[in-house]
Amino acid sequence: MKLIGMLDSPYVRRTAISLKKMGVPFALDQLSVFGGFDAFEAVNPAVKAPTLVTDEGEVLMDSSLIIDFAKRRLATTEEPDGTTSALAHHHRVLALALVASEKSIQVVYERSLRPAERMHLPWLERVERQLASTYKLLETEYGNGASEKAPEDLSQPNIMSAVAWRFSREMIPDLVREQDHPALAAHSARCEATPEFKAYPYPTG
Amino acid sequence: MKLIGMLDSPYVRRTAISLKKMGVPFALDQLSVFGGFDAFEAVNPAVKAPTLVTDEGEVLMDSSLIIDFAKRRLATTEEPDGTTSALAHHHRVLALALVASEKSIQVVYERSLRPAERMHLPWLERVERQLASTYKLLETEYGNGASEKAPEDLSQPNIMSAVAWRFSREMIPDLVREQDHPALAAHSARCEATPEFKAYPYPTG
Repeated sequence: MKLIGMLDSPYVRRTAISLKKMGVPFALDQLSVFGGFDAFEAVNPAVKAPTLVTDEGEVLMDSSLIIDFAKRRLATTEEPDGTTSALAHHHRVLALALVASEKSIQVVYERSLRPAERMHLPWLERVERQLASTYKLLETEYGNGASEKAPEDLSQPNIMSAVAWRFSREMIPDLVREQDHPALAAHSARCEATPEFKAYPYPTG
Repeated sequence: MKLIGMLDSPYVRRTAISLKKMGVPFALDQLSVFGGFDAFEAVNPAVKAPTLVTDEGEVLMDSSLIIDFAKRRLATTEEPDGTTSALAHHHRVLALALVASEKSIQVVYERSLRPAERMHLPWLERVERQLASTYKLLETEYGNGASEKAPEDLSQPNIMSAVAWRFSREMIPDLVREQDHPALAAHSARCEATPEFKAYPYPTG
């Protein structure tokens, strides 16, 4: 199987770390949806990262769907299912981390993909307000011990929260400050120290 | 349970139709993330539609996660699991429909949320190219009989494809034309005629 995308995308990094955690073998092909648009388009005309090409040649997209497919069909380890309220809470924290990523990406796109005179401040302010609220909720979750079992428990909420946090800190450090989110910063540090995160590091330098 | 969001959002409509199909009881509260930002924020500070509030008060987001939660914990009907390749293909078609929605929304946002002088044509052209490719792939899937069993089989790919198609036709008819997508148009018509789609119609007029 081949996973296509750059590790500076939180969705690509989430997927790579999750597949490794599950023991699913794959090769990472770091094509960019920007610099490598045409090459990416040749594999997946929708040009959406991450893209997973299965051994049978099926072209999948969407980090949540790729992980669900791997979990149900390919994983050698299985996450416990838990109770109904545990599942609801698991999904809530995962969704907060997904929204934190999405809003961070919207800010980055608005700032970097268009010339300054095409930026629209009311839109940016709206997205930044959602971003701040989301990270505040996530900090509360982690402050209340959501990741107590990390790094042993690289659950989907724990992976996605740590990946989102690192991405935001790298790309929009002015909007997401460590001193306001000590629990998330500590969670991130624990996760980044695991073999899975080290195998697929955020690209720096 | 309460589902919060407007039916003109393809993610909200997908979720409402899916919950109904599964036999999960819920009340729909049509709050807008635009006109009703402050009221929405009081329930969910991330202001993300759809939002599901469970009977225990857990606040969930993300249509895929809400549907996964409902399917695993609340559903009275269960979709068959199928083989590995069937699951991969199911996820592929569902992802195409999710991308079709996402790219349509990006075009609508670019056109309607910012003044004309803040629109950025290279960005629009890029998104429109992804949108066209995605609908072409989806048309091929449906032309090859992906929805043969619809409307009896309101699977997630079938629901999301029909919801995305209707949204695009209503919002950006200049970019997504019926004559180029006869199989999708026919699939949409079949789905829109089911009780589930009629219960949560696209708001018109």
